Amino acid sequence: MLDLTGPFGIHHLPYGVFTYGGVAPRVGVRVGDAVLDLGGAEAAGLIDAGGAFGQPTLNAHLAQGRAAWTAARDRITTLLRDESATLDGLVYPLTDVTLLLPFAVGDYVDFYSSEHHAANVGALFRPGSPPLLPNWKHLPIGYHGRAGTVVVSGTDVVRPCGQRKAPTADVPTYGPTGRLDIEAEVGFVVGAGTALGDRVGVADFADHVFGVVLVNDWSARDIQAWEYQPLGPFLGKSFATSVSAWVTPLAALEAAWVPAPAQDPAVLPYLSGGGHRGLDLALEVEWNGTVVSRPPFAPMYWTPAQQLAHLTVNGASVRPGDLYASGTVSGPERDQTGSFLELTWGGAEPVTVGDAKRTFLEDGDTVTVRATAPGRDGAVLALGEVTATVLPSR
Amino acid sequence: MLDLTGPFGIHHLPYGVFTYGGVAPRVGVRVGDAVLDLGGAEAAGLIDAGGAFGQPTLNAHLAQGRAAWTAARDRITTLLRDESATLDGLVYPLTDVTLLLPFAVGDYVDFYSSEHHAANVGALFRPGSPPLLPNWKHLPIGYHGRAGTVVVSGTDVVRPCGQRKAPTADVPTYGPTGRLDIEAEVGFVVGAGTALGDRVGVADFADHVFGVVLVNDWSARDIQAWEYQPLGPFLGKSFATSVSAWVTPLAALEAAWVPAPAQDPAVLPYLSGGGHRGLDLALEVEWNGTVVSRPPFAPMYWTPAQQLAHLTVNGASVRPGDLYASGTVSGPERDQTGSFLELTWGGAEPVTVGDAKRTFLEDGDTVTVRATAPGRDGAVLALGEVTATVLPSR
Repeated sequence: MLDLTGPFGIHHLPYGVFTYGGVAPRVGVRVGDAVLDLGGAEAAGLIDAGGAFGQPTLNAHLAQGRAAWTAARDRITTLLRDESATLDGLVYPLTDVTLLLPFAVGDYVDFYSSEHHAANVGALFRPGSPPLLPNWKHLPIGYHGRAGTVVVSGTDVVRPCGQRKAPTADVPTYGPTGRLDIEAEVGFVVGAGTALGDRVGVADFADHVFGVVLVNDWSARDIQAWEYQPLGPFLGKSFATSVSAWVTPLAALEAAWVPAPAQDPAVLPYLSGGGHRGLDLALEVEWNGTVVSRPPFAPMYWTPAQQLAHLTVNGASVRPGDLYASGTVSGPERDQTGSFLELTWGGAEPVTVGDAKRTFLEDGDTVTVRATAPGRDGAVLALGEVTATVLPSR
Repeated sequence: MLDLTGPFGIHHLPYGVFTYGGVAPRVGVRVGDAVLDLGGAEAAGLIDAGGAFGQPTLNAHLAQGRAAWTAARDRITTLLRDESATLDGLVYPLTDVTLLLPFAVGDYVDFYSSEHHAANVGALFRPGSPPLLPNWKHLPIGYHGRAGTVVVSGTDVVRPCGQRKAPTADVPTYGPTGRLDIEAEVGFVVGAGTALGDRVGVADFADHVFGVVLVNDWSARDIQAWEYQPLGPFLGKSFATSVSAWVTPLAALEAAWVPAPAQDPAVLPYLSGGGHRGLDLALEVEWNGTVVSRPPFAPMYWTPAQQLAHLTVNGASVRPGDLYASGTVSGPERDQTGSFLELTWGGAEPVTVGDAKRTFLEDGDTVTVRATAPGRDGAVLALGEVTATVLPSR
């Protein structure tokens, strides 16, 4: 039953939280198309995480830090490879379990770190002006999103209502968004926290970040366009942010690091050093069964280590369960963009989705974001997908 | 020992969380200059809140909703007025206890609802343009702040470092902020939550909001000015937000409601109705012992009920412990402004603080925000103060 090779094989071992048959939610690890019940394994004395795996979120394990993460992963690997007979009764087919939000989200920060995305949005929203604002290449622009509306993959997304104003109208109107969009992103889950006043240098990234999720940061472009001056996005984003049910530990991504793009102008010292690495993740956006885009993560201008260093340079603390996302992942080509705003160039150039032409999302549409990454020994890992279906507004 | 009259008398009864002599944190209520140990009272069978008062945060009681809040307040009133002999051993002088952050903050939203403040900031940051942006009178502008760096009154604030760029400079530099500022605000603490997709109408405000705190939303103006385009404030705000240790229940503020300013143009239906009321709170900002400003809360353009209706109109859920703040409270006069940016007109017009002239905050400075409100039967309530001292950057 346990498939130790393949995209969810022994080189991957992503963590999630699940329930089945009414038992209390607990931590599990995905192996092939099955879930190994780590809460049950800990109760049976097969692994010791100080009780963290019996918890309904990953947060207790996140807080334990890198040494505990390594010890747990090593022990799980040994169990699967050498002691699988002891796991009888602790393995469930994925189809039998319900996956829950894997961690309680502390603060959620969304960055804006793809140069192609920022330039596309600049060209669409500020035609005639330079596409990048003067600060963009000096710091990783970001803002806080709503942590309480982060939902797990599979949760339906209700079309939000709000204010929007047509460019030619004098006053705004109220109603369902007419420009519902996605943002395909990669999210980083903070494990070990910091005290208020501390900073996390770029070289200390792996001491604090546990792993990676895929993110779809749903966006209502008409609501966003009307509200965002001068304090940034608010209701255009806060109605839902979907994350994958599986958190891929950084330890599984050792073979995925690649040099990040050179940065010009040079960045300030607190953003430099630490290897300047990006992750070679290949994203894929599927819209009602049609793959419409393949955004590459490796060319992102700002790295996850720079994002965390920037986030904390003012002494802001981080907590286990904090989530920060890359911002929309867009490559240089149109069919590498991570939002439909870009893919359809502001809705002016519809794309073919199955038998239909589409600009923004219609009710009933389903969007799935997937990604693969190089694993050890030539393996290809599949990150947990993030999928959701749009329901009509209430 | 129990002073039932005065600003923290029986008409007030604000809630907090405290510890003393090493005992576990628990909920208490302030009576005069003493704390009644509600956790101890519940353990002794004097009051029943389902165990909520023995918890280390108010969140369990917040989640119980309006009927439970009313029942607890009624019972506390009876205990104090008619059964005070039973409270022996459960009352501690304020000077003997340590006050903690009274609730675990879910999401923190900061609004921008003083017309005078928004117009002042517009005039300072966008000279030559209309002071209010076109959206300002159509919706309560707001954004998400960092929940994990909300700290209780009395916590020192370390001067943050970050990037800032002088207007005449080509590139930014890194270092301690040179324009450390306050924002005197009023915060609303959400009690009963909602499900994703639900809205809270303006008339349903009191079913969801438990009470009020004072807020100082510390701001580094140079960092903020460089970073805030296009996604809003981030590191210029996220290093610390101070809140008072005492949460004044809405029930104590029944006499403080006043008609809110008329709104022109008319607002959309989801923002109208519900009484359109503001709170007649008189704020006071003290800087190193000198009262430099007296911001009035009653003239705020957007009401707390409108803010909550707007926050949830897109279906965003709220949770017990969510905090939303009014934005800087500034009245029409210079000595009624709630930030030093306004008080000193961008630093151009120093104010006298004791024997010194000041623009922005220096290391060692202490700022205290206080407020009073009309209570029942002619009482004057004092809201819990929010105070902090600035420490040098690290």
